[in-house]
Amino acid sequence: MAISKFAVLSIFVCLTVFVTKYSIAQNANAKTVKSSVASYEKYIDDKMDAHLKEFIELVSIPSISSIPSNKPDVAKAGAWIVNKLKAIGMTTVQLIANEGNPVVYGSWNKAPGKPTVLIYGHYDVQPVKESEWEYPPFAPVVKDGKVFGRGASDDKSGVMTSIWAMEAMLNKDGKLPVNVKFMFEGNEEVGSPYFKNFLEKNKELLKADFALNADGVQYDENTPSITVSLRGSVQLEFSIKTANTDAHSGQFGGKTPNSVLIMSQIIASLYDKKGNVAVEGFYDKVLPITDAQKAMIKKIPYDPATDMKILGTTAETGDPAYSPLERVWYRPTLEVVGMQGGYTAAEGHSNIIPGNAMARITCRLVNNQNGKEIVDLMVKHINKNCPAGATITYKFGNGYASPIVFPTDTKEYRYLSEVLTQVYGKQPYQTATGFTVGALLSVKEVLGLYAYPLGVELSDEKWHAANEFLRVSSIRRGQLMYCKYWEHLADEESKLKK
Amino acid sequence: MAISKFAVLSIFVCLTVFVTKYSIAQNANAKTVKSSVASYEKYIDDKMDAHLKEFIELVSIPSISSIPSNKPDVAKAGAWIVNKLKAIGMTTVQLIANEGNPVVYGSWNKAPGKPTVLIYGHYDVQPVKESEWEYPPFAPVVKDGKVFGRGASDDKSGVMTSIWAMEAMLNKDGKLPVNVKFMFEGNEEVGSPYFKNFLEKNKELLKADFALNADGVQYDENTPSITVSLRGSVQLEFSIKTANTDAHSGQFGGKTPNSVLIMSQIIASLYDKKGNVAVEGFYDKVLPITDAQKAMIKKIPYDPATDMKILGTTAETGDPAYSPLERVWYRPTLEVVGMQGGYTAAEGHSNIIPGNAMARITCRLVNNQNGKEIVDLMVKHINKNCPAGATITYKFGNGYASPIVFPTDTKEYRYLSEVLTQVYGKQPYQTATGFTVGALLSVKEVLGLYAYPLGVELSDEKWHAANEFLRVSSIRRGQLMYCKYWEHLADEESKLKK
Repeated sequence: MAISKFAVLSIFVCLTVFVTKYSIAQNANAKTVKSSVASYEKYIDDKMDAHLKEFIELVSIPSISSIPSNKPDVAKAGAWIVNKLKAIGMTTVQLIANEGNPVVYGSWNKAPGKPTVLIYGHYDVQPVKESEWEYPPFAPVVKDGKVFGRGASDDKSGVMTSIWAMEAMLNKDGKLPVNVKFMFEGNEEVGSPYFKNFLEKNKELLKADFALNADGVQYDENTPSITVSLRGSVQLEFSIKTANTDAHSGQFGGKTPNSVLIMSQIIASLYDKKGNVAVEGFYDKVLPITDAQKAMIKKIPYDPATDMKILGTTAETGDPAYSPLERVWYRPTLEVVGMQGGYTAAEGHSNIIPGNAMARITCRLVNNQNGKEIVDLMVKHINKNCPAGATITYKFGNGYASPIVFPTDTKEYRYLSEVLTQVYGKQPYQTATGFTVGALLSVKEVLGLYAYPLGVELSDEKWHAANEFLRVSSIRRGQLMYCKYWEHLADEESKLKK
Repeated sequence: MAISKFAVLSIFVCLTVFVTKYSIAQNANAKTVKSSVASYEKYIDDKMDAHLKEFIELVSIPSISSIPSNKPDVAKAGAWIVNKLKAIGMTTVQLIANEGNPVVYGSWNKAPGKPTVLIYGHYDVQPVKESEWEYPPFAPVVKDGKVFGRGASDDKSGVMTSIWAMEAMLNKDGKLPVNVKFMFEGNEEVGSPYFKNFLEKNKELLKADFALNADGVQYDENTPSITVSLRGSVQLEFSIKTANTDAHSGQFGGKTPNSVLIMSQIIASLYDKKGNVAVEGFYDKVLPITDAQKAMIKKIPYDPATDMKILGTTAETGDPAYSPLERVWYRPTLEVVGMQGGYTAAEGHSNIIPGNAMARITCRLVNNQNGKEIVDLMVKHINKNCPAGATITYKFGNGYASPIVFPTDTKEYRYLSEVLTQVYGKQPYQTATGFTVGALLSVKEVLGLYAYPLGVELSDEKWHAANEFLRVSSIRRGQLMYCKYWEHLADEESKLKK
């Protein structure tokens, strides 16, 4: 433990030195950004403590969108952000009601003739298994250069670094080089089921020339990346009932069906021996992996030891016909995310035949896979494998999130690549990801914009798991990214006009 | 519901009339018991309300032996019974410390020259899944002629009806026709791991001529039965770990092992397609079912609809090569009694790959099966089926309970049969059972006594499950059984001496 803390601290110190040096070098070379760089960088540094305090306030709010009883907390987090946007001096700030949780909207529009950038993020978070947290998930602790708390990385980091970037620029100059609109939603962690409808209802208000997704990641602490495709996702819960009550295992054992056994048999039936999904039709709409995708993967220095270090795993799984990155980026998955049946309290042992068992499934989708179709296929498979004496009840989610692929031959991609190169001192990797931001396809379909990712999340920050954290250093770097992006966008677009 | 309540009430009323009429008839016919019958029956009836109040007090104590933090409650229940035994005027009353929970011991020895009966029972109970109870498990409610509460039937009914029977006789006559020793243990629900040791250490104190097991059942409300064999049992808990933490299902899904999937595959592997246990060697020491056992089963009017009504099941399971009663009475089982992994809170959905899953198993054993050997076979099977990337941790119970078979050609069996015939007005069925009272084989091995069952539990009273109850009518009948048994035993044994 001591060694690893020391290592983290060392990286942190080196990085701070590196970023500072690099910024000075940039100031000398890049005339276009020279005038304001010093000012907003100083502001960002001066406000570090205050921002960390603010961040802890927001992360303290348990805005868990998948738990109905946490709805007031989600609302509280939304209201907190609205107040923040007002405080930094945005032109228009609104909490826009929508089915599900409201969307936080803010606009700064005092750069006439300049492009408008629409920034997406989400202020809702995943649930927690509190007993597994070393620190309380909703009373953030700062330790070893990390803020621990649910949502600290995913995605309150994206929401707050983009807001603070605006604060930094407005504070010094009173203006931004481009127009900016924020839309932060509160249902991302349940697959953004109502977001497309929100976009359609507010199409005029959200009109923009460029879009960004603040729920974005970098390759590692020192290496930038641009994510050019994301998987979709869909969720399903089902319960197996074999009896109205648990039964005494001695009295009835040998003639009474066991819901947990049947659940286990059904879950085992969902996979084949290679570890692929055995649900009929599951892969029908999955496209072969292209040469371009294979070439992209070849450039990534993938090391399974990195995952193993993060997770403590000792082996990789999956069909060896595909490489690990191919499987995560371009192949769909079906994961049992939770299962419970019978007596499972921490202590004790109850000699029963459980009458009920429950399981939850999340699928990650690719290409042309459609969430509704996948759920239908799963239901068909489960029903087919359900023996006599058991009845199944399904609980369906409110929708599903579609996969998305971003084009890489656009100016939007180029701008982003240039800004990341500037911030990190090296070119970004082009990567894909296995995770999902369901709203992005809707943004493309309704507003005609690709919301390219620009965020500071890092893959070891335990998203969705216990002990999620954000590196404190990312608070500074996230603001730099956004400030530099806005400046670079204004410069490049004005060049095009000339 | 209205109809079923009415039915229960009708049975209750009819039964009360029947028992009363029958007792009067008996008084006329059976000279040997005439003098005291009227007296203790009146006392039993007069004290009904007071006894019910006492019973509620005892059932209120959550004496769950499998939960370490409930140890003080188990002690409290033991102390409560000690006080009760003192109050009714037993000669010697002791709480005998033992590994695990203490044994309540009481002796009434003022019938010199008469036989001594040793009565076994247990005051510990199974754990509860509180959310599934219609009434609170430890704040008993009396409704429709039933007392609802954990342990009301199994086995606080056995403990208290035998004690009250003694109270009734002592109160009127100041004496009993035989000498009586009680031993009520507090670790039955975890397989009586320390009871054999207790018997060995207290062999002299426990010396007796006859033994009874108050944790006994009758066939139904109107039909007696004598259980002549019980299965043994053994418990095992194991956890599968695939990672130190849950993993984001998008970020890692496709390359990271899922503990719940592996758990499901392992559990599914424990059974073959017929529903038999697939653990190698599991059936090696199981003897074929004998003709005598088959003949016994033939006499029982078994109707699967009865179970289905009790449990709400819609189908029976198990290898059709055996009949349902053959499977429950003479074949061993392996039941998963609980399984948990991943995010399973009542609300919410967490998109994770669970890093940990846990399952608990209870096996019921028959004939020469040995608990330790069976656990070893299970461990071997589980290890063999555990894939790379998963590690298994086992939690073993403190011991196991052995199966037992009672001889039916003894005077002990005959006395019991005669008393039950007297109380119910019809001959008892000879039955076996699939459940376990682990202490019984130890009683035979250490004290040389077969503790034949004499209790009032009925198979629909939801032992181990939610909403356990005892019929209020059984409080009266249980006392009658014991009073009549002591009288009959004294009479028959004195006849033998002549």
